[in-house]
Amino acid sequence: MEGEPTLRLRIFDLNCWAIRYLSKRRQERVRLIGDTLRREGFDLVLLQEVWSERDYSDLKVKLAGCYPFSHYFRSGVIGSGLCVFSRFPILDTLLYQYSLNGYPYMLQHGDWFCGKSVGLVIMKISGIIFNVYVTHLHAEYCRDKDAYLPHRLVQAWELAQFIRHTSKAADVVLLGGDLNMHPEDVGIRLLRGWTGLRDAFAEATRFEGCKNGCTLVPDNCFTDKSELLPFPLGIRIDYILYKAISSFTVKCEELKTTTGPAPGMDIPFSDHEAVMATLHIQRRGQPAGATLGAADLALVDVVTEARTEVGVGLRAAQRQRYSSGRMAVLALLLLLLQAAAALGTLAGLGAEQPFPKLSFCLLAFLALGVLVLTTGLHLFHTMEVKMLHGTEDQMCMALRALQERPSEG
Amino acid sequence: MEGEPTLRLRIFDLNCWAIRYLSKRRQERVRLIGDTLRREGFDLVLLQEVWSERDYSDLKVKLAGCYPFSHYFRSGVIGSGLCVFSRFPILDTLLYQYSLNGYPYMLQHGDWFCGKSVGLVIMKISGIIFNVYVTHLHAEYCRDKDAYLPHRLVQAWELAQFIRHTSKAADVVLLGGDLNMHPEDVGIRLLRGWTGLRDAFAEATRFEGCKNGCTLVPDNCFTDKSELLPFPLGIRIDYILYKAISSFTVKCEELKTTTGPAPGMDIPFSDHEAVMATLHIQRRGQPAGATLGAADLALVDVVTEARTEVGVGLRAAQRQRYSSGRMAVLALLLLLLQAAAALGTLAGLGAEQPFPKLSFCLLAFLALGVLVLTTGLHLFHTMEVKMLHGTEDQMCMALRALQERPSEG
Repeated sequence: MEGEPTLRLRIFDLNCWAIRYLSKRRQERVRLIGDTLRREGFDLVLLQEVWSERDYSDLKVKLAGCYPFSHYFRSGVIGSGLCVFSRFPILDTLLYQYSLNGYPYMLQHGDWFCGKSVGLVIMKISGIIFNVYVTHLHAEYCRDKDAYLPHRLVQAWELAQFIRHTSKAADVVLLGGDLNMHPEDVGIRLLRGWTGLRDAFAEATRFEGCKNGCTLVPDNCFTDKSELLPFPLGIRIDYILYKAISSFTVKCEELKTTTGPAPGMDIPFSDHEAVMATLHIQRRGQPAGATLGAADLALVDVVTEARTEVGVGLRAAQRQRYSSGRMAVLALLLLLLQAAAALGTLAGLGAEQPFPKLSFCLLAFLALGVLVLTTGLHLFHTMEVKMLHGTEDQMCMALRALQERPSEG
Repeated sequence: MEGEPTLRLRIFDLNCWAIRYLSKRRQERVRLIGDTLRREGFDLVLLQEVWSERDYSDLKVKLAGCYPFSHYFRSGVIGSGLCVFSRFPILDTLLYQYSLNGYPYMLQHGDWFCGKSVGLVIMKISGIIFNVYVTHLHAEYCRDKDAYLPHRLVQAWELAQFIRHTSKAADVVLLGGDLNMHPEDVGIRLLRGWTGLRDAFAEATRFEGCKNGCTLVPDNCFTDKSELLPFPLGIRIDYILYKAISSFTVKCEELKTTTGPAPGMDIPFSDHEAVMATLHIQRRGQPAGATLGAADLALVDVVTEARTEVGVGLRAAQRQRYSSGRMAVLALLLLLLQAAAALGTLAGLGAEQPFPKLSFCLLAFLALGVLVLTTGLHLFHTMEVKMLHGTEDQMCMALRALQERPSEG
């Protein structure tokens, strides 16, 4: 078994923070990222927040020599921001857009417009089939009162389900990306428990980089220091996860993160640190049996916890659906009332016009505006309710399956 | 080999046309469908257009005895309308919502609000793993000038990709649903070619029902006769498709459709006819080798044809994105101009007010309305462009893979 040849794979993962017009020194940093990738010669590069297709094209041209294969995932208004560069041929791709991703009216957060997704690329390296997933989940803007937690949990669940259902023919599964969750958060535990993925940072034989593997650190000149006040060392929200499915083993030999400024430069690649893993993949004699049991019990707890949080989100969405619907009905009533008054005046029922024309018109426009807006909101929250409800259903089904597993064999 | 036991599976598929407040005699028909399903005892029931969760719950209660397992797929504003009833346990489910599905402003068509999706349920029957897909694609409102063709093609492609990527551990794949495409349409050829699915109607040993297997027929009292004028026999747009993946064979022993009124009743189940298939599934000695070659060549043609249509849609979407963007800019300019005039008047620059207040206000509101509307449209068409472009990319990649296949071995 030990004699089997080993495949060594070097992976680079980075949230590039390349938002046109908004991100500081974007072009310079994208050039820097491209130069480094070309020099370092990784096997596989997983990037997020490459929002501009132009930046992707520039990188593609620059990296054509050492990474001849690449894919950019398109979705949403702005794009998914996800792309992959590879030394090895990409055989197939698939994109899954998360069903929930924040609110269109939260313009200052903007996640909704990005069409957050998970991208899958399938590759065959030395006869081993790799399913490589790259993703970026909804940001966390306020940890104490995280209004987006249910959405992020739905995304973590959909990510886990997508990986489980699409990786059945894979030998090795890799996931890289900005998950916007701390290592102990319920979403990460759900994702890891439900897919069996292992955390490269926790498994690495050698580690080098920011303390605790943090990828959003106060030392980085682009991070918002006030957001990181409760976490003086920074937080770890960018991950490389992996697992071997069939008769293979994967080991993480080394994990590195960048630590602020790029070597020999005055700026870092991004406001996030890059994560770089060196994996060893080896064929082994027999397929590993499922080693569940105790893990199953822990998983039941995690799924239950996630389901509770989704339930909280569901009730909030139902309240919002109700209040926007009520507001729409009120606006409609006001409009009808005004129409009746106007018709009455036209028909000469009222002796004189009761309101000044201008305020009457303004009021009608206001009512119309409120009607359109609240109807839109009502539709949106109806969708949100459906999705949260659907996820809750799926989690219930998963819990049943987990609890019945021993009897099924 | 012949001695191996055979599994016989009876499948029922129907677009139920159960739209609350809109579909004629809905409750009566849902009751009728439930009664028939209970009496006939199929193994697997795939329903579409069950828009109301209430109808689903009623069916679930009624069918609990003979179909103890069921799943309703939630998505979109109204729902996906998709549900499954089964005699056998459902092990897992997954929903994939199509990235394009018509236009929100085409209220009279309403497809956009339905969140058209494909639902997957996984079952294990007699040790055989079944991946069962149920779906409903975008309707065709005008065959001669079908504005939705690119969207439906994107859906057919996403459906095919979703099936390919999620069915790798399945022994048998089943797909049932209203595909809204005629058997010879490019979308059907793409779906069948790219997944290897076979058409139960074409393969059936025995057939009974409407001529040519049509499922939308003029004899049905609920169909729109004028739409079917060019097709006096009707059209076939509801399908049961299947394939065996590993060491199994599937044969369609019998295919039936309903023919208008339900037995002993004055009304049919729906405006669509139901499709009922009896499949024989048998284990065979050796896994079947891939028998491609000539099929590959035909597939190249189909993918090329589909890609051309998607390209046509892409250019139309780009034009709409451009014109809505231009309109938004014009509205914004008008608003700015008005703001400048108003400020000028306030500052006492103009000797007297140039416009009557009311028309000035009305114009401002009009400009604001146009701005909001066209900005929304612009965002929507930007998403549409991204999705069409992404699909075109994927199809190109598929073409390259198909053309390189012989050299790869």
